[in-house]
Amino acid sequence: MVEFQVNSPTRECLVDITHQIQNAVTTACPPEFSGLVHVYVPHTTAAVTVNEGADPDVARDIIFALARMVPRDAGYRHGEGNADAHVKAALLGADLSVPVVDGHLKLGMWQSIFFADFDGPRRRRVWVEFIGALPSGMRA
Amino acid sequence: MVEFQVNSPTRECLVDITHQIQNAVTTACPPEFSGLVHVYVPHTTAAVTVNEGADPDVARDIIFALARMVPRDAGYRHGEGNADAHVKAALLGADLSVPVVDGHLKLGMWQSIFFADFDGPRRRRVWVEFIGALPSGMRA
Amino acid sequence: MVEFQVNSPTRECLVDITHQIQNAVTTACPPEFSGLVHVYVPHTTAAVTVNEGADPDVARDIIFALARMVPRDAGYRHGEGNADAHVKAALLGADLSVPVVDGHLKLGMWQSIFFADFDGPRRRRVWVEFIGALPSGMRA
Repeated sequence: MVEFQVNSPTRECLVDITHQIQNAVTTACPPEFSGLVHVYVPHTTAAVTVNEGADPDVARDIIFALARMVPRDAGYRHGEGNADAHVKAALLGADLSVPVVDGHLKLGMWQSIFFADFDGPRRRRVWVEFIGALPSGMRA
Repeated sequence: MVEFQVNSPTRECLVDITHQIQNAVTTACPPEFSGLVHVYVPHTTAAVTVNEGADPDVARDIIFALARMVPRDAGYRHGEGNADAHVKAALLGADLSVPVVDGHLKLGMWQSIFFADFDGPRRRRVWVEFIGALPSGMRA
Repeated sequence: MVEFQVNSPTRECLVDITHQIQNAVTTACPPEFSGLVHVYVPHTTAAVTVNEGADPDVARDIIFALARMVPRDAGYRHGEGNADAHVKAALLGADLSVPVVDGHLKLGMWQSIFFADFDGPRRRRVWVEFIGALPSGMRA
């Protein structure tokens, strides 16, 4: 497992971590590695997601739409003032697996991997694990 | 990795791809393969999800409920008119892993695997990878 | 694969299953096992999620916020009166993978794994599979 840190600049933001994930694969795996990279967020008010990285407005729209769906104040019970952040983290999810082929992330043309913070700004952590595909020799 | 294509018939729809996923497993893996099949959508306005396949009204209700939660026009910044589709894709997620036992998908009785398009109709792609379970011989 | 059961006490609830997942790892894997544990819910009106376990109000707020986003009655087509539960299950997702290091779940400090029921009370099932990480010896 590889761990790296993310500094989220604002309370609610999507931070592109594609480059850090590729770095983790390059550092930890042999060049011929193919399989999955598992990305895990060990926090309860943050998440990981894949979406368009080319136009930064898409990330802002995701934050905006989630804020519309899950208002910051809506009669929640949790006393820390961040109940909305827990709900948003549940909606996007704490883990994600992305294909790797010959040591390179295999993403769609417009896809980036984002760390999503809903209760920043903070120093956050991301855990990365590497899972081999069924070897070709074992295939039908 | 196996790739196949999906033709989504309308802008927003769930297309049952259970059969194509099973075909990918049958074609690429030995009959005794057990582990996970990883299903990945390399698009930013589409997703993959598991839900009821028996009554097609369930798929329609999911599309309907998402449209209610994420209106098509709500003051988004992204200029392509499909910001709602990016948000819905983030909510359902781009990847999923389903158990495989002895070469067969192991789904719940009512479960099907769906490709979810929110910005069709289009020809889309799905990437499938195969991950072996910890061999029994290595178990405690 | 290991299967265990969960009794959900009410229609909509989050049940902490961290202990059962750890038990599955301890029972099925050698003490030095490192990789991922895959948690799968074979139902279409239930899900699995990771969030704060320390304050039970967080789980209640997640249920509350989902009920606000996806009303029980909103003109759905599905005739069984549980269309909202299918939608909520799609939002949280049927599967999740969590890191394991040396036989122990590696969760964030405040994280628990929850079975989420949206159409209980019922006896439900959870499927657990074990996926080895790329062995250190194969690493760069």
